[in-house]
Amino acid sequence: MNETQQIHPVDVILHKRDGLALSDAEIQYFIHAVVEHTATDPQIAAWLMAVWQRGLNARELATLTTAMRYSGETFDSAFLNSFCIDKHSTGGVGDKTSLLIAPIVAAAGLKVPMISGRSLGHTGGTLDKLETIPGFRTQLSMAEFADVISRCGFFMAGQTPRLVPADRILYGLRDHTGTVESPNLICASIMSKKLAEGINGLVLDVKTGSGAFMSKYEDAKHLASLMVETGELAGTKTVALLTAMDEPLGRFSGNWVEVWECVDIMRNVRHPMSADLIELSNILAGWMLYLGGKAETPESGAVLSDEMLTSGAAYKTWLEMTELQGGNARVFDDPASHHKPVATRVLSAETAGYLYSMDCREVGWAVQRLGAGRAKPGDPVSAYAGIEVHTKLGAKVEKGQPLLTLFAEDAALLDEPEAMLRATYKIAPEPPELNPMIREIIRHEG
Amino acid sequence: MNETQQIHPVDVILHKRDGLALSDAEIQYFIHAVVEHTATDPQIAAWLMAVWQRGLNARELATLTTAMRYSGETFDSAFLNSFCIDKHSTGGVGDKTSLLIAPIVAAAGLKVPMISGRSLGHTGGTLDKLETIPGFRTQLSMAEFADVISRCGFFMAGQTPRLVPADRILYGLRDHTGTVESPNLICASIMSKKLAEGINGLVLDVKTGSGAFMSKYEDAKHLASLMVETGELAGTKTVALLTAMDEPLGRFSGNWVEVWECVDIMRNVRHPMSADLIELSNILAGWMLYLGGKAETPESGAVLSDEMLTSGAAYKTWLEMTELQGGNARVFDDPASHHKPVATRVLSAETAGYLYSMDCREVGWAVQRLGAGRAKPGDPVSAYAGIEVHTKLGAKVEKGQPLLTLFAEDAALLDEPEAMLRATYKIAPEPPELNPMIREIIRHEG
Repeated sequence: MNETQQIHPVDVILHKRDGLALSDAEIQYFIHAVVEHTATDPQIAAWLMAVWQRGLNARELATLTTAMRYSGETFDSAFLNSFCIDKHSTGGVGDKTSLLIAPIVAAAGLKVPMISGRSLGHTGGTLDKLETIPGFRTQLSMAEFADVISRCGFFMAGQTPRLVPADRILYGLRDHTGTVESPNLICASIMSKKLAEGINGLVLDVKTGSGAFMSKYEDAKHLASLMVETGELAGTKTVALLTAMDEPLGRFSGNWVEVWECVDIMRNVRHPMSADLIELSNILAGWMLYLGGKAETPESGAVLSDEMLTSGAAYKTWLEMTELQGGNARVFDDPASHHKPVATRVLSAETAGYLYSMDCREVGWAVQRLGAGRAKPGDPVSAYAGIEVHTKLGAKVEKGQPLLTLFAEDAALLDEPEAMLRATYKIAPEPPELNPMIREIIRHEG
Repeated sequence: MNETQQIHPVDVILHKRDGLALSDAEIQYFIHAVVEHTATDPQIAAWLMAVWQRGLNARELATLTTAMRYSGETFDSAFLNSFCIDKHSTGGVGDKTSLLIAPIVAAAGLKVPMISGRSLGHTGGTLDKLETIPGFRTQLSMAEFADVISRCGFFMAGQTPRLVPADRILYGLRDHTGTVESPNLICASIMSKKLAEGINGLVLDVKTGSGAFMSKYEDAKHLASLMVETGELAGTKTVALLTAMDEPLGRFSGNWVEVWECVDIMRNVRHPMSADLIELSNILAGWMLYLGGKAETPESGAVLSDEMLTSGAAYKTWLEMTELQGGNARVFDDPASHHKPVATRVLSAETAGYLYSMDCREVGWAVQRLGAGRAKPGDPVSAYAGIEVHTKLGAKVEKGQPLLTLFAEDAALLDEPEAMLRATYKIAPEPPELNPMIREIIRHEG
């Protein structure tokens, strides 16, 4: 750190404020000061707003991401002597692909050190879903990460307190200082945490459409490009798929109901409403298997992925992981019987026609309001709240046909979500033009 | 505040971040939240940086200034039944015009409620100078403000703790978050404090040149225009003079030495090195007397100002104010005898020629390093440290002729300032082209 000893936090703020590119030393020094608390919270907030306004070039972004990645402890995957790969989704409604992909890819012979998050805004969180399995522990130590992954090929857990502490501090400030929606800061936040898993490859599922955080297609594409470039600059094979999030993915949206849906699939019980989920999971897993050398092409990777599901191989690793992380796998024998909502209600079509459109973000909020999400960090979530969809966009519907079933732990919680869903589910005389599931694939040029 | 109850600090940050004009309600709410501590320091810092980047329009600036002005207690001048006026300088080296102008204008019949500051950066502070008068109190209560000004026509004191608290909070954050150099924020800071004095008129001395905080002429002019517009929008007659700060003003720079210089002038002892100080003071006081209706023109105001000096009328009010604020006015009988530096050193010309140029900011720093300034807020300042200039820019000098005398309370403090001054005082074979003292006058259009 010799060359950085003369740097002061204010100098770094001033340089970015005035639109200059920050040096590697300045960025490393600033993130060091963030973690060591020698930069004050107001200084960090001013710097975040300056970055929001002035942006970062590719080198600054790569340096920032690396500085954040190494701001605390990291998962050292070298002892596994194996290709490590993960998948990250920018968040959607009913987006439970992680629960299928991790066991699929581990069953096919790659290692998946999967660190996930909780419900945020209108979207669900993998940890909240996993914790509906009785006994399942998502808070593991670094030593437990190593133990679980070396035994079954993957783990599914939350961040440790000392992993990427810079992101925790920056995100805590961004959330209430109006500096969340910066593509550079979003990229650095996501990529620093993923790269701290010690991965050799990464597949990004960047959601677009009304159910995505970035509803503008060009914004989502820009973020995808930044993340791919940043991953590649860090030496991690990275690909991003821009995927449609125009309606809830799969059959269920909620917490336990999503685990149930995935367990059914891994047990070869394929409900028609899960078709889109299975297709997307196989495509994403196919890319992971291709990047990790288990398939010649992404397409043959997707075929291999489906084999891992139909053969029961993925379910076997899933059961192993569940038990290694303290979960009682017997609930999977009859997942429907573990579903205990107190109140249900069916929303039916008021007219005949085609299911034409919805604001998928509004659907996500309805799921959260049913009890599946939390109003503020630390609140409990309902295991059994959520929705089941009975039809998909573009489908022909008859008057009175059930569109959705709502689940909640208290009948009083049904009214507002029902009204929200009724208002946003549009039926029209003609079928809509639908977006393809995979809208674009972003890879590194050269 | 009904219309503002739905506003959240983050919303105000987001709107300014995205370049929108803030509504009156948003600005009033935000300043309220600053003072009530319902906006956090990081939120305030992010907002300040957003304002730095996006700017404010004239209406936003006027609303911000007014909201800050009324964020705490204000001096209610109505009971004086008289035109109240003040002068503000953006800060210079040897700039002691306040010590002359306040008694001049009071002697001519206007009221001058003068709230001043301390030494900042390379510039001196009026309060630090006044406190070298034995017994003089600069920390007065609001009731004392009223008592002193009603008896002698003016007071010279520091801010009370409850006057413009929003500025204290904002400035404390700006100082270390890289958001000082915003013309809008500088304007709001200066004007909110001046307008809180309850003044009907204001003359601004905006310094330009190497000794000014804003060394670029266009930046100083822009700030002057903002302040004039903001003052006029608040109903206060406001004029700004852009003045040259290319060398120290007058004979002395320091603390007691500056009081001494002014006392000499008020006692009709006119040292040749004080000519520029007397001229600028009369011009500024002339504008104040003109705005306050005591003179037909600024020029005849300047003549009246000089009469207040030569007649002894200004000195009489000065003595009254000094005693009302606890000072021992007997030290003025022989000001040279009250000057007690332990160490002095003379800097002489190394070659013959014309005094050609200097970096006046560097001269100011040398004065501060001699002991006249403080390294951090709360440090004591030396009463007797400073410099006396023996020649002015453009003057012919002989080799070995004294240029400056340095004063300090410890001989060890002389070396560094001497080297700084020697390095920056340039002598050349030809005389320089000098800026006029008054470079431009900014008045409200219409």
